[in-house]
Amino acid sequence: MGDAIDDWLARFDAALTAGDTRAAADLFKPGGYWRDLLAFTWNILTLEGRDAIAAMLGDCLARTAPSGWRRTGAAEETEDGLAAWIAFATGAAHGTGRVTIRDGRAHVLLTAIADLRGHEEPRGRTRPAGIVHKADRHRTTWSEARAAEAARMGREDQPEVLVIGAGQGGIALGARLKSLGVPTLIVEKNPRAGDSWRNRYRSLVLHDPVWYDHLPYLPFPETWPVFCPKDKMGDWLEAYASIFELDIWTSTTCERATWDEGTGRWTATVRRGDGEAVTVTPRQLVFCTGAYGPPNEIRFKGREDFGGTLLHSADYASGAPFKGKRAVVIGAGSSAHDVAVDLWEAGAEVTMLQRRPSIVVRSETLMELAFDIYSEDAVEKGITTEMADMLSAATPFRLFEGKQKRLYDTIRARDAAFYDRLRAAGFAFDFGEDDTGLMMRALRTASGYYIDVGASDLIARGEIAVIGGEEVERLTPSGLRLASGREVAADVIVACIGYQSMNEAVAGIVSREVADAVGPCWGLGSGIQGDPGPWQGELRNMWKPTAQEALWFHGGNLALSRFYSRVVALQLKARMEGVPTPVYGRPVPRQAGL
Amino acid sequence: MGDAIDDWLARFDAALTAGDTRAAADLFKPGGYWRDLLAFTWNILTLEGRDAIAAMLGDCLARTAPSGWRRTGAAEETEDGLAAWIAFATGAAHGTGRVTIRDGRAHVLLTAIADLRGHEEPRGRTRPAGIVHKADRHRTTWSEARAAEAARMGREDQPEVLVIGAGQGGIALGARLKSLGVPTLIVEKNPRAGDSWRNRYRSLVLHDPVWYDHLPYLPFPETWPVFCPKDKMGDWLEAYASIFELDIWTSTTCERATWDEGTGRWTATVRRGDGEAVTVTPRQLVFCTGAYGPPNEIRFKGREDFGGTLLHSADYASGAPFKGKRAVVIGAGSSAHDVAVDLWEAGAEVTMLQRRPSIVVRSETLMELAFDIYSEDAVEKGITTEMADMLSAATPFRLFEGKQKRLYDTIRARDAAFYDRLRAAGFAFDFGEDDTGLMMRALRTASGYYIDVGASDLIARGEIAVIGGEEVERLTPSGLRLASGREVAADVIVACIGYQSMNEAVAGIVSREVADAVGPCWGLGSGIQGDPGPWQGELRNMWKPTAQEALWFHGGNLALSRFYSRVVALQLKARMEGVPTPVYGRPVPRQAGL
Repeated sequence: MGDAIDDWLARFDAALTAGDTRAAADLFKPGGYWRDLLAFTWNILTLEGRDAIAAMLGDCLARTAPSGWRRTGAAEETEDGLAAWIAFATGAAHGTGRVTIRDGRAHVLLTAIADLRGHEEPRGRTRPAGIVHKADRHRTTWSEARAAEAARMGREDQPEVLVIGAGQGGIALGARLKSLGVPTLIVEKNPRAGDSWRNRYRSLVLHDPVWYDHLPYLPFPETWPVFCPKDKMGDWLEAYASIFELDIWTSTTCERATWDEGTGRWTATVRRGDGEAVTVTPRQLVFCTGAYGPPNEIRFKGREDFGGTLLHSADYASGAPFKGKRAVVIGAGSSAHDVAVDLWEAGAEVTMLQRRPSIVVRSETLMELAFDIYSEDAVEKGITTEMADMLSAATPFRLFEGKQKRLYDTIRARDAAFYDRLRAAGFAFDFGEDDTGLMMRALRTASGYYIDVGASDLIARGEIAVIGGEEVERLTPSGLRLASGREVAADVIVACIGYQSMNEAVAGIVSREVADAVGPCWGLGSGIQGDPGPWQGELRNMWKPTAQEALWFHGGNLALSRFYSRVVALQLKARMEGVPTPVYGRPVPRQAGL
Repeated sequence: MGDAIDDWLARFDAALTAGDTRAAADLFKPGGYWRDLLAFTWNILTLEGRDAIAAMLGDCLARTAPSGWRRTGAAEETEDGLAAWIAFATGAAHGTGRVTIRDGRAHVLLTAIADLRGHEEPRGRTRPAGIVHKADRHRTTWSEARAAEAARMGREDQPEVLVIGAGQGGIALGARLKSLGVPTLIVEKNPRAGDSWRNRYRSLVLHDPVWYDHLPYLPFPETWPVFCPKDKMGDWLEAYASIFELDIWTSTTCERATWDEGTGRWTATVRRGDGEAVTVTPRQLVFCTGAYGPPNEIRFKGREDFGGTLLHSADYASGAPFKGKRAVVIGAGSSAHDVAVDLWEAGAEVTMLQRRPSIVVRSETLMELAFDIYSEDAVEKGITTEMADMLSAATPFRLFEGKQKRLYDTIRARDAAFYDRLRAAGFAFDFGEDDTGLMMRALRTASGYYIDVGASDLIARGEIAVIGGEEVERLTPSGLRLASGREVAADVIVACIGYQSMNEAVAGIVSREVADAVGPCWGLGSGIQGDPGPWQGELRNMWKPTAQEALWFHGGNLALSRFYSRVVALQLKARMEGVPTPVYGRPVPRQAGL
């Protein structure tokens, strides 16, 4: 089977070496996909179909100078075709990837930069020695060097990269950049690294299992719980930041950042905990401020009339003050479910006001059906996290949609009894406009779904009441009036109404104009509500060049933060080292009103 | 080849099942070895020869009830014979091991407990869930439970185990015990976990490479330096202790501990940093106070006359105060070499006063020839740290001596030029009384050797002067007078004269009587100077029952702390759970004067 892959690679190599972009494109199936992570495009792009592939090669092939295509593992029959891991080189980088062929043509090709030539990450055999085995009268010890480096960072030494936020995104990226020798300053508004987890509501536990959550370099130990409690995750991130010697300024806010085209540097004002304003001038600015921007503002009419407690879920910490009180949770996404349970556990009388159908899936079901390559089974089969990540990366979003639809067809049938109970309780659910389920909704709109870790049973049993398909007309002194005229009494209202897009954080720090020019993050252009077209093939603005030079977004859940931290770090490293990084398909600035 | 192993295992199983101890023993070569880590003996023992094996089986076989012997990997030809990994079970435990056969009989058998039946360590598939996926009005969150557990430990809740010392020994053991659910309190005299490394001299860097140094559960990342600087190791240990949620009381000294045979508990007085004395009553007491006891006292005549600075290497932190001064380092072991370099780097004029020949080996040479199974090559071949540890454990000390002698024959020839230069500089060296080299000396006497990381070149170049084969007659106001009558001027004298045995720490905390009854730690009874016979086959008192019930020693370098922490933890867990642990070959209390 390996022969078929080898043969394809040889023909592909020959076409590329000959500069024959059409011949290379014709080695793909007519609807074939090429997903590229930096190797050819210095971008994250999926090219769909031969014309798109030929066009990209027409622009990128000569300067990429690819060579040395070879298979690095056994070929395997998969549901998508015959697949194998591959390696190659470009003028600038060592590349890895995966190819899946059908009938001798590529169905999917993934190409990714693994390391920059001449700037390889020192690890394994090339890890730092830690000592020169020689007496040295000018010896600086590790602790002296580290203390001096920390003291100079952001003062005498300007960072190459300023990272805003020390959650999993900023910390994973920080570790990659440290290892690559890119001077980086991370600012975190909270007093401790990891506080973005600690500050969440009391009962929060990760909804993703441990095998999916590893950070780079330092996997969780095999004694780590499957679902990590939030404070334990906070402590892990803090220990991790210490182990990787990250330069984090805590209790520090980035107040303002201005790009100077002339000097090629940002001028950023950061406010430290003691009130001192420090100006730093990084070449690159990375927003790791969470998957969302600021909380959506609570705009219900009559909100000033309401006599009880009204708060956004972002400000909700604990149900303890609401024992015996009537609580209304507005919304039916993850936060709404978790907050409803927390209130119920605290002894409140809880009503969930559901405005739109949600996608709900049982955690056990997802664990069994969707996390197969991130599981103890996978570990046993020798599928490392890095391999699982590359397998995931080797599925273009278009194909992922199809796979997800089939998955949800299975889930719907399998958990029919569960969904019947939810329906009977008046809870409105669907599986997305095109039945592609929870993960696609997360990627497209980052809202409107819940992985069930306990709330659904309370809803089915009527312990959490549900009012479905209703909009809030206004708040009243004693509660809410719904669009139907129905009155709902409430002592406390928690508005789980979501967050603005990540680029709103840019508006606050850089400018409204830049935020608008860059446009929102996430979403694929799938054309469903909340994710307008045209189809992008990739997530908007995440981990790749944006319409604003030297401005980046990084983050997502732990898994995305892990995998894409390498992609972001390699782009920043290349720019620091002066490696040419011509971006194919760079987004153009959006114009106001579009 | 596997057939030969399978055949041997089947015959061995049959003999054991039949209770035929003689037949079982006859399945070994006449001089064959059986090393047992707890599985049969609840001890760490090497049985040498058929009679010793038959005698052990006569005592242990019936109650051990071994069964299910099987091969768990491919058989491999090794220099010692045909070898394979094996598994088996006993009434109390799941066992693993390795057998090496020659001509159909066992040359070496290793048997070890991997897990206790019914008390298996929750890891991998059985790791904690971290959450019950169910709403719960009596939910205690992880942080609440952890805070309560920490607050109760040593107060309302008595620890099962009191560990003295939070270096790598105490911390590795603490992590194992935590994972096994054994309530443990660790007391550490210094203000922070890891300070035992931070407090050492400025230039200290680990002499062992990273692949040999991993702690349990959380391997160093692949970006970790080969040789870890001391402060970085201190920080790692501190982060590690936090990640594994160890209960460590820092700035706390164990002042006194008394065993009560009646209650089966120790009564220990620990003094906390604020002066409070707390009485704790653990069932088990583990000394993790370092591979050595207190520093040897400086007893040179005339020490009160000396007008300069006189200190033990344990109290030496930095050469900075001694720039331009005349420094004499007494001794020629690891500390003496490192201190001499540190003084030289600080600009002192350094003389090493060598009283006895040392064993010196170049670090590069050891890395290449002695750490083959702990290396990047090994990682690439799929030899995990756990496998490497079991490979090491599968070599009885008697065989290790022979292997080491051959290694040092090679080293001597290979590095002849290096040794010629040392000799020309007047530095006295040997390879041990029986030419078995550095590692054997370390195991036998824990002194008198140096892995060269730079000092030897300074000595060869005369930058560090050496006075060899001389004893100190007395100190004088201006320096030292040697036995030969020679006077040596000194502004500072650093006495690198070693440490007392670990059991001296017992004398200070428990009693002189108990310390003497237990006797010294380390040493094999090899009959060479500093390690009197009779031959023990194993290291004295380390990681196994001692002559004092419920008193244990744990520690050693990072590798020993890693591997034996499991052995110690399983013994403590078994005792906590009431699993019968009849010890075969328990040491008898030594009598005073013997």
